[in-house]
Amino acid sequence: MEHPIITLTTDFGLSDPFVGIMKGVILGIAPGARVVDITHEIPSHDIAEAAFAIDFAHRYFPDRSIHVVVVDPGVGSARRPIAAAVRGQVFVAPDNGVLARILEAPAEVYHITNTGLFRRPVSRTFHGRDIFAPVAAHLASGTALASIGSRIEDYVMLPASTRPSVLRVDKFGNVITNLRLDDLPAGFAIRIGGRSVRRLLDSYEDAAAGEVFAIEGSAGFIEISVKRGSAAKTLQVGAGAEIEVETGHANQ
Amino acid sequence: MEHPIITLTTDFGLSDPFVGIMKGVILGIAPGARVVDITHEIPSHDIAEAAFAIDFAHRYFPDRSIHVVVVDPGVGSARRPIAAAVRGQVFVAPDNGVLARILEAPAEVYHITNTGLFRRPVSRTFHGRDIFAPVAAHLASGTALASIGSRIEDYVMLPASTRPSVLRVDKFGNVITNLRLDDLPAGFAIRIGGRSVRRLLDSYEDAAAGEVFAIEGSAGFIEISVKRGSAAKTLQVGAGAEIEVETGHANQ
Amino acid sequence: MEHPIITLTTDFGLSDPFVGIMKGVILGIAPGARVVDITHEIPSHDIAEAAFAIDFAHRYFPDRSIHVVVVDPGVGSARRPIAAAVRGQVFVAPDNGVLARILEAPAEVYHITNTGLFRRPVSRTFHGRDIFAPVAAHLASGTALASIGSRIEDYVMLPASTRPSVLRVDKFGNVITNLRLDDLPAGFAIRIGGRSVRRLLDSYEDAAAGEVFAIEGSAGFIEISVKRGSAAKTLQVGAGAEIEVETGHANQ
Repeated sequence: MEHPIITLTTDFGLSDPFVGIMKGVILGIAPGARVVDITHEIPSHDIAEAAFAIDFAHRYFPDRSIHVVVVDPGVGSARRPIAAAVRGQVFVAPDNGVLARILEAPAEVYHITNTGLFRRPVSRTFHGRDIFAPVAAHLASGTALASIGSRIEDYVMLPASTRPSVLRVDKFGNVITNLRLDDLPAGFAIRIGGRSVRRLLDSYEDAAAGEVFAIEGSAGFIEISVKRGSAAKTLQVGAGAEIEVETGHANQ
Repeated sequence: MEHPIITLTTDFGLSDPFVGIMKGVILGIAPGARVVDITHEIPSHDIAEAAFAIDFAHRYFPDRSIHVVVVDPGVGSARRPIAAAVRGQVFVAPDNGVLARILEAPAEVYHITNTGLFRRPVSRTFHGRDIFAPVAAHLASGTALASIGSRIEDYVMLPASTRPSVLRVDKFGNVITNLRLDDLPAGFAIRIGGRSVRRLLDSYEDAAAGEVFAIEGSAGFIEISVKRGSAAKTLQVGAGAEIEVETGHANQ
Repeated sequence: MEHPIITLTTDFGLSDPFVGIMKGVILGIAPGARVVDITHEIPSHDIAEAAFAIDFAHRYFPDRSIHVVVVDPGVGSARRPIAAAVRGQVFVAPDNGVLARILEAPAEVYHITNTGLFRRPVSRTFHGRDIFAPVAAHLASGTALASIGSRIEDYVMLPASTRPSVLRVDKFGNVITNLRLDDLPAGFAIRIGGRSVRRLLDSYEDAAAGEVFAIEGSAGFIEISVKRGSAAKTLQVGAGAEIEVETGHANQ
């Protein structure tokens, strides 16, 4: 690849030089790489949020893109660094669940043990710099996935939440649920934040001012929204809030 | 162009994966494109602020740069997507006024109707991903502007504010007005936030500690500043605040 | 160089278009340059913080990288613009101490006086755009360092703090001190925020829940940390806080 793509998803924020440092390491190994930020504003140590972000974002990247995900509360401990080939793309991350949504698809997963690919010395506090960035850069430069370590099957998966709940709130205050369009029966009502939401709209513009409505969001989940307002503020809900889906109502 | 430049100006923030997703879409279509962020911190739905940002920023980009502006409260409604050739550069945006300052110059404006250039399916909530990013990437890859749709003349312009007022406050607390240097007569006084500002300085360093003064800012507008302090905090003013220009004073 | 690297470290934030504008200027002069953000969230006018960030970050960039640092409270005054060759890399910045940590190593420092390399007209409020970005881009395009001005020896150095203190707090709440591992004697106790820290750990994971401990951080300084918590909040300390190193304790 002339312009291999490496994306970064972390909880490092943008105030510290951590992200820039990872890019320096990458460009030192793979000078032609295109480094793309997915987000660095994952809340500190929030594995579920990182799992959501990379699962949403990678679908819009070309084949052979390499995605580095570093939300790593266990850095320096025995948790394994892994790399996984899924749907024609490659993911490099700690084995702590950040790839759990990705790994629901058929995957080849490797425990990264080839220390020759690491930056030396390897710190015990910044594996983004010392392990994940250089391994991704070597993969972008043509190192074969199979040469980075041994194949594993016992990688960390997170138990899928079986109850309807709020995954997260986006910048506009849209409340992203874990419901899909197929989860809404005819005559549904979504109970959330003390309200009953029964209107499913195709577009924000179809809503009345102040109305709380459901819409299929751009990540493929049902979102609860208020046109030009914040549904999260209106409903006073955030990530993890439970919701209920009732049936037998007349939808509006 | 070997390295076509595509800039992004949005109100998406950097916490969600939206911006990274737009870059993935662009690089999938135009692998050699250089994607440059202008800002993603436009306040949600603030069309005037986006119009200011792109009007300021594009002047420093080389010919043939392509600028994508997505502040789009009407996404999914009947508002048109447009592309405009202005001053040797190209702008791709919703037709809602975000290009109003740009379009004061002679412009060729097209209503984007060639759906073959869109990402499919087109959502009704994220046209940045499905329409604006892919159209910009196709333009960067050599698609002719005239092939994206039909020429229009009735694009949205915003009424220019005729009254002196505050456009915005920058990160340092400088208060950017809509006044130009030519708008200040000899013996001027700018009434703002209960103060009368009569000193026009060439440089922040020429100010006394705590002094509130006027200066021609880097965007070409008169700014009200406090050296190493925040004029916005000192004056308690923000975007939209009205100001008055008086004459007949002895400038200092 | 086919892909010269130019990094940016500023206090401009990401809400204004300033950073995007600098990139536009750079790409207009050096179309093949790779522009990498170190951080733009240096607190306004905080020279010491910028000096720390670039000193930490540049070590991870390849030879011949060019680093632009613009934290410049004296913009428009007589303070000199300088460029310095240090350790095979080049630094472009105002001569106000932002390079003080870098310039502790053997350095060739030039006062930038070749105005032919500037963007014209040169404003007195935005030298990042008009001087530092274009000079860096010309250097990336092959302009020799010696042609930008005359060699100087009297560049600004900051007095090294001789007392143990807090350099800064990172995004995770880790308290970065100016102590090195060698500064901790056997039986040390670090007095900070009313506590006495005696445990030096190799990894966050080795800590007990809630424990305040010392660890060698990724920048090479001793940091005071709380596992999955904020040491800065626990200790109620921030940048500049004084600390004491005592001896004669039994380390734990």
